Amino acid sequence: MSITRMHSGARMSQIVVHNGVVYLAGQVGEGDDIAAQTTDMLASVDRLLAEAGTDKSKLLAATVWVADMAEIAEMNAVWDAWIDPANPPARACTEAAMVLPKFKVEVMVTAAL
Amino acid sequence: MSITRMHSGARMSQIVVHNGVVYLAGQVGEGDDIAAQTTDMLASVDRLLAEAGTDKSKLLAATVWVADMAEIAEMNAVWDAWIDPANPPARACTEAAMVLPKFKVEVMVTAAL
Amino acid sequence: MSITRMHSGARMSQIVVHNGVVYLAGQVGEGDDIAAQTTDMLASVDRLLAEAGTDKSKLLAATVWVADMAEIAEMNAVWDAWIDPANPPARACTEAAMVLPKFKVEVMVTAAL
Repeated sequence: MSITRMHSGARMSQIVVHNGVVYLAGQVGEGDDIAAQTTDMLASVDRLLAEAGTDKSKLLAATVWVADMAEIAEMNAVWDAWIDPANPPARACTEAAMVLPKFKVEVMVTAAL
Repeated sequence: MSITRMHSGARMSQIVVHNGVVYLAGQVGEGDDIAAQTTDMLASVDRLLAEAGTDKSKLLAATVWVADMAEIAEMNAVWDAWIDPANPPARACTEAAMVLPKFKVEVMVTAAL
Repeated sequence: MSITRMHSGARMSQIVVHNGVVYLAGQVGEGDDIAAQTTDMLASVDRLLAEAGTDKSKLLAATVWVADMAEIAEMNAVWDAWIDPANPPARACTEAAMVLPKFKVEVMVTAAL
């Protein structure tokens, strides 16, 4: 089974596809608060899934990290409005610092083609 | 390849099945200490795997988070007694805060059907 | 679809193979600084992938944890020199404490056979 990689840089690929499963790199977003960052982050997920040939209705699993768990409700409000309500993924969310202190949220997802 | 989702809410599905792989949402447990919480958490994993049509002998990978790494031995004691000794999954365990401060441990697993 | 497990202990398997996908347990490395630990850790990944019948050119996704995000550049320098530049995996990296305070970095990867 072949592997397809897209947006590959020196460190990682943003998209890897193998055996009908799409693996995205961790996505962050720009914005002054976690709601804005979540909106921007999930727009990146949408864009990358589209490039891979799929969409959020086929999400399998998501790992979410928030820099401050006190802000999870604001992140979840954007998340809940974003997901396909008929097709939510498995998800876990824990607290962690991201690569840059400005980032308040990050997500890594897998989706079916 | 079709996707099956079970226990789907507004935010996530507890079970997603695709191409012979079962993805569970992050599971936590109730209890006064990490041993009790781990027991309760792994009972939820057992129950969800059964609903998906599989069991812990087919676990592929597990990501474990503990709120306080000083308690990992207590978690591991319950974990070691729980896994099928002939069929342990790949596993990683790091320290992280969970969605509520009361939660001392969380696990996200994938299993084969 | 059968499951193959290698280096299985009382707690986890270092290698699990199912349906053309290899799941490795979280790998750490020995060494006085994060660069040395990353080199040792990635040597373990190479060795385990070889035992599973694959190699780093078939990596699908990697989750990296660093104990101190201030050291990510040193980790990335080793990572960037290690990966197959034509075939980088999807990756996310967050900050977390590992099982022992001496460990500065850990990685959990999946690869195609």
